[in-house]
Amino acid sequence: MADVPTGNAVVGQSGGPTAVINQSLVGVIEAVKGSRRIPRLLGARHGVRGIISEQFVDLKRLGARQLELVAGTPAAALGSTRDKPDEEYCRKIFDSFAANDVRYFFYIGGNDSADTARIVNDLGRQAGYELRVFHIPKTIDNDLRVTDHTPGYGSAARFVASAFMGEDRDNCSLPGVKISVVMGRHAGWLTAASTLGRGDDDDGPHLVYVPETPFSLTKFARDVEDVYVRLGRCLIAVSEGICDQSGAPVVQALAEKMNLSVERDSHGNVQLSGSGTLGDFLARYVAENVKPGGRKLRVRADTYGYLQRSFAGYASPVDQAEARLAGRKAVEFAMSGQTEGSVVFKRAKGPAYRISCARAELYQVARETRSLPREFINKAGNGVTDAFRRYAMPLTGGLPKVGKLL
Amino acid sequence: MADVPTGNAVVGQSGGPTAVINQSLVGVIEAVKGSRRIPRLLGARHGVRGIISEQFVDLKRLGARQLELVAGTPAAALGSTRDKPDEEYCRKIFDSFAANDVRYFFYIGGNDSADTARIVNDLGRQAGYELRVFHIPKTIDNDLRVTDHTPGYGSAARFVASAFMGEDRDNCSLPGVKISVVMGRHAGWLTAASTLGRGDDDDGPHLVYVPETPFSLTKFARDVEDVYVRLGRCLIAVSEGICDQSGAPVVQALAEKMNLSVERDSHGNVQLSGSGTLGDFLARYVAENVKPGGRKLRVRADTYGYLQRSFAGYASPVDQAEARLAGRKAVEFAMSGQTEGSVVFKRAKGPAYRISCARAELYQVARETRSLPREFINKAGNGVTDAFRRYAMPLTGGLPKVGKLL
Repeated sequence: MADVPTGNAVVGQSGGPTAVINQSLVGVIEAVKGSRRIPRLLGARHGVRGIISEQFVDLKRLGARQLELVAGTPAAALGSTRDKPDEEYCRKIFDSFAANDVRYFFYIGGNDSADTARIVNDLGRQAGYELRVFHIPKTIDNDLRVTDHTPGYGSAARFVASAFMGEDRDNCSLPGVKISVVMGRHAGWLTAASTLGRGDDDDGPHLVYVPETPFSLTKFARDVEDVYVRLGRCLIAVSEGICDQSGAPVVQALAEKMNLSVERDSHGNVQLSGSGTLGDFLARYVAENVKPGGRKLRVRADTYGYLQRSFAGYASPVDQAEARLAGRKAVEFAMSGQTEGSVVFKRAKGPAYRISCARAELYQVARETRSLPREFINKAGNGVTDAFRRYAMPLTGGLPKVGKLL
Repeated sequence: MADVPTGNAVVGQSGGPTAVINQSLVGVIEAVKGSRRIPRLLGARHGVRGIISEQFVDLKRLGARQLELVAGTPAAALGSTRDKPDEEYCRKIFDSFAANDVRYFFYIGGNDSADTARIVNDLGRQAGYELRVFHIPKTIDNDLRVTDHTPGYGSAARFVASAFMGEDRDNCSLPGVKISVVMGRHAGWLTAASTLGRGDDDDGPHLVYVPETPFSLTKFARDVEDVYVRLGRCLIAVSEGICDQSGAPVVQALAEKMNLSVERDSHGNVQLSGSGTLGDFLARYVAENVKPGGRKLRVRADTYGYLQRSFAGYASPVDQAEARLAGRKAVEFAMSGQTEGSVVFKRAKGPAYRISCARAELYQVARETRSLPREFINKAGNGVTDAFRRYAMPLTGGLPKVGKLL
């Protein structure tokens, strides 16, 4: 076995929560508990913030029962952060590590977190300080590179798919136009999952719009009218991040076109999550512009919001197990002499769903995001393909069954 | 046994869907299947609409396996309707019954449906036509009179409680102000259920606003600031139907105060469901008016929308069993010689949760709604009491467990 340092470990959680981010945390804790190389496992409160302010929780003392409860609880049990450290911030992280004899750093987060891990790792190397740095992916957006999929996505996909199964039955029982807005600023993975519960051809969602395809309001209106004329109803899944041809968020174009006001954050970005604006604007647009046979339609919009990432009690069992495994594997990689990396999933070829874990270099995962590939989006740009459904279905751990009478 | 007519039966579903409205339908089908008095069981497509247009589905032919699938599927499998029949409409219903030798009418719906049933029953009596009319309650709003609770409420309460459990962990991991808007135009039963997953004193939701208590924007801002200063975060549950002192919807007052525009339906009512307006307005109001120590807060709002009534795969098992029972009981009442009524639940006294079914007269249930009683709302008018939690908890069928580290 390669040389493996003796020293403390820090684990932290970062970015938007998922339903299984604590599974990965508990995976790390369980694996570290078995290691005599690591006397203390320090849980950083609110990610990098807790590291630079040395706000740590001692995690080795926790019992199996409490760990199991924590693992099953959504959102970051250690607290999360939106801080995106620059070089200066990373230097403070490194100083905190040196002060606490930290030789292992496990960071559970998205691509920003992988980048933080990468910078800290470089600092360690430059200083000649023995440090092992591992990133454990999590994001409901499924937009990390290299890996087959990310922990967190399967549970969010299960939630969104089940939501649309219910929405479809609801829309069938009280017909009208229903628009539901799904999380995903840059990638349509989660919105695409809205289709996973579809059984029959006429099942909704009938239209799916993702950020990967430029969105046109006039085509949208035509799509809705086509479906409505055919089925007498229409259920629509829309990514919060859909953009027009110019790359501008659709909510902005709608606001201008319809003379409405829109919220912006302190950076001037249009606020997408935690707001019903896009859905409400689209609903109003359909009500004003889609009138088959001159009739005004009943149009409603919902924005799923935070429930997608944090709903309690409905995580995917497959996602739960995989997230736990990813946490354990990060520790195993570190203990087998690897110095840095991100845990990635490889899917076995063949009809049965099976994954194994591998290690990617941090730089491979850091910063860049992964969009829905072409072959997962239909030609018309308003739906997804069977190839996507075959890819995503196993990650949900199975969906409820539906019975119909009509 | 009293005289029981021989003839066909009609069953229909009405109003906003629930996760268990099909359990009641299947309860009716199962019970009727065993009766030789009823040669045909006609399922009316889209409630009273299907009755007057004689659009019926033959339900006696369905097998046990399909019935079980239908029972577990949310939203009205026969289709629902928003039609609220007047006397003239009810006469058409009655004519359809007479033309199809219908002697039993089972109508699954809210208080409007009970009223329809009542009028149809009166018409039958006036015409000397043997007709047995039974209402089977369903509503996520839990606002029917006489009964301990309504089928449909337990599942919606389970969804909302689990949603807030996740929201609370999410809000704890990334602190800020989060407002989530819950269904309930006139009664706060469902919004109150947001508290059912609370364990520790500092768990959210920290503030709960229901339509039963007049809502004041200035008091709201003060409440939010108090919680935020104490905990560094604040999770808020708000009924979509909150009104100010004058009884006007709060969304209207906010729109005027902040010079924003608001959607109205064709009757001039402010649109509440299927729109994120109230949440977005409240979030903006907090951001502009609550600045502890001069600091602008991170405020987000979600509006849960249709998921509350139709999410697939997460119904309360207690609610499912009770909704099925209510359907069966309606048939039993009819077969035991009762001529009309609504199925109500009586809760047994004592620590263990147990219900039995009883019959109420249709007029007792029709039209009137039931609000949260005084003793279920806290003195400050911004929370609910333990008495409410004791009342509502058993209906959820149990909630997920939460584990914490901080």
